[in-house]
Amino acid sequence: MDELIEPLLAGNRRALSRAITLIESSREDHRARASALLAALPARASLRIGLSGTPGVGKSTFIEAFGQMLTGEGARVAVLAVDPSSARSGGSILGDKTRMERLSRDPNAFIRPSPSQAQLGGVARRTRETVQLCEAAGFEVVLIETVGVGQSETLVADMTDLFILLLAPAGGDELQGVKRGIMEIADLILVNKADGDLEAQARRTVADYAGALRLLRKRPGDPEGFPKALPVSAVTGAGLARAWEDMQALADWRRSSGEFERRRADQARRAFEAELRGRLLARLERPAIRALVGDLGAQVAAGDLAAPDAATQVLARLSAEPE
Amino acid sequence: MDELIEPLLAGNRRALSRAITLIESSREDHRARASALLAALPARASLRIGLSGTPGVGKSTFIEAFGQMLTGEGARVAVLAVDPSSARSGGSILGDKTRMERLSRDPNAFIRPSPSQAQLGGVARRTRETVQLCEAAGFEVVLIETVGVGQSETLVADMTDLFILLLAPAGGDELQGVKRGIMEIADLILVNKADGDLEAQARRTVADYAGALRLLRKRPGDPEGFPKALPVSAVTGAGLARAWEDMQALADWRRSSGEFERRRADQARRAFEAELRGRLLARLERPAIRALVGDLGAQVAAGDLAAPDAATQVLARLSAEPE
Repeated sequence: MDELIEPLLAGNRRALSRAITLIESSREDHRARASALLAALPARASLRIGLSGTPGVGKSTFIEAFGQMLTGEGARVAVLAVDPSSARSGGSILGDKTRMERLSRDPNAFIRPSPSQAQLGGVARRTRETVQLCEAAGFEVVLIETVGVGQSETLVADMTDLFILLLAPAGGDELQGVKRGIMEIADLILVNKADGDLEAQARRTVADYAGALRLLRKRPGDPEGFPKALPVSAVTGAGLARAWEDMQALADWRRSSGEFERRRADQARRAFEAELRGRLLARLERPAIRALVGDLGAQVAAGDLAAPDAATQVLARLSAEPE
Repeated sequence: MDELIEPLLAGNRRALSRAITLIESSREDHRARASALLAALPARASLRIGLSGTPGVGKSTFIEAFGQMLTGEGARVAVLAVDPSSARSGGSILGDKTRMERLSRDPNAFIRPSPSQAQLGGVARRTRETVQLCEAAGFEVVLIETVGVGQSETLVADMTDLFILLLAPAGGDELQGVKRGIMEIADLILVNKADGDLEAQARRTVADYAGALRLLRKRPGDPEGFPKALPVSAVTGAGLARAWEDMQALADWRRSSGEFERRRADQARRAFEAELRGRLLARLERPAIRALVGDLGAQVAAGDLAAPDAATQVLARLSAEPE
């Protein structure tokens, strides 16, 4: 049995960190060990919350305040990040733990920066596995943060039980700036900065979004009143308890209707299919195949070979290779 | 030799239609015949022009007028459409030939509606092959129309020599509504409806877009002044000759600099790689494999099997199967 399992199940954060590093590694032996480790872990009940919001909306401050509220209630909270842009920038969101200084020192919290990744597919798999590890380590609430870039919200919504959109107070005109697709996957829209001078504007923004949400078709399996919009202040803490109550109420409703388990089952099945496609395509990345594709691609580019014939040659070579 | 080749090379439009239908078929024997046909066709010089514009901008009227101007100059013009939304709607753009009534009766024009398709990848391959067929049939100008939906512009830009964006006269504020990515791939922005009451507004819009284009980095390999914005009127025909001159000037510049051939070679290489990925993934669609994926997916969804182990089983089964 892997030496990491015991401390991991006991909730040891250092063991958790090491296990995640193993999962993020692309070394063959690390991957094998990670697979065996994951297969050996028991499933534990948890609530997976996706959180999206553009830069400047106060996402770190919100997570810091919200996370501490949860740990104050005795919950253990893991915070992960999905940042597809980190591959380009080389940086990572959550990379600077000082962004959530107090939460990161909280023994009941675990914060893991987004790894720099080349592919969104790889990010998805590793994040899903990291969630499993956090849950095995006894973190009942797993918060997955993402910046609103490209497909990352859909990706995060597809691995969480609830999806929260954090927005800033805005004029009615700016409402259109929120992509319809994102509005449609949000279970809860939280308008942050509902404090001081911005409080009235935040409340108006909440009303605007509440109106927009009413126009969207209600999703089957959701209780009356959801999706909904609420004002919060990450600075004063106002509205955070109410938001958490709503998250729990929605999760409970989905649990009792069977929707919760059905969503997780769907997510697991789709993740398997995505992993399958990813691993099949990864065969094209083997050095000998890459060389062949490069060679035949040059002939196709020069007009000396038809693309279908070139593809047939590569596929034949792949079939002839040992696994 | 395929019986279609001779009439196709002679420019027979009925043979061209039949060859395209062959290419659009998913029947195995049709695919085999289509591949053989394509491999046997000679390459002929042509200019491939991508054209995008949102509904209401006057795209059909533009193509009708522009196409007739070209056939009037003795050119043979094929008009194709890429419409990723047709899979959902069941309809197709260009489906109603009455949209371009006169051009469709022109013996030197060929108009082919967008087929209803399930996958963007399939649309791309079939459109590329249709372009080859049209060129073999002696159409020197191939115009590929697309509605501005999702990734379709990028797809069309990646199979054409020039990319034209057709826009309506607009207030300065609306300029931001044009996605930056589309501005960046456009070689020429044509502001339509520069006639009657809208002429002044169209000219202001041209100035706005010209300013926006200057802010975008000039692409290497393009002559001074490109990308550029021009006013046109599909109704009066004003500006069409000027736009065609500019298209030819840019194409000539790219031909003499080698950029034209380099782009086509890159496009051919990328199309080959996309076809390769598509055919590799198509293995997962075989009935026996689909059944296995469904069965293992259910076990993964139920939590009885780890996704990596399920994926390994499918990949092993694929390797054991004959091609």
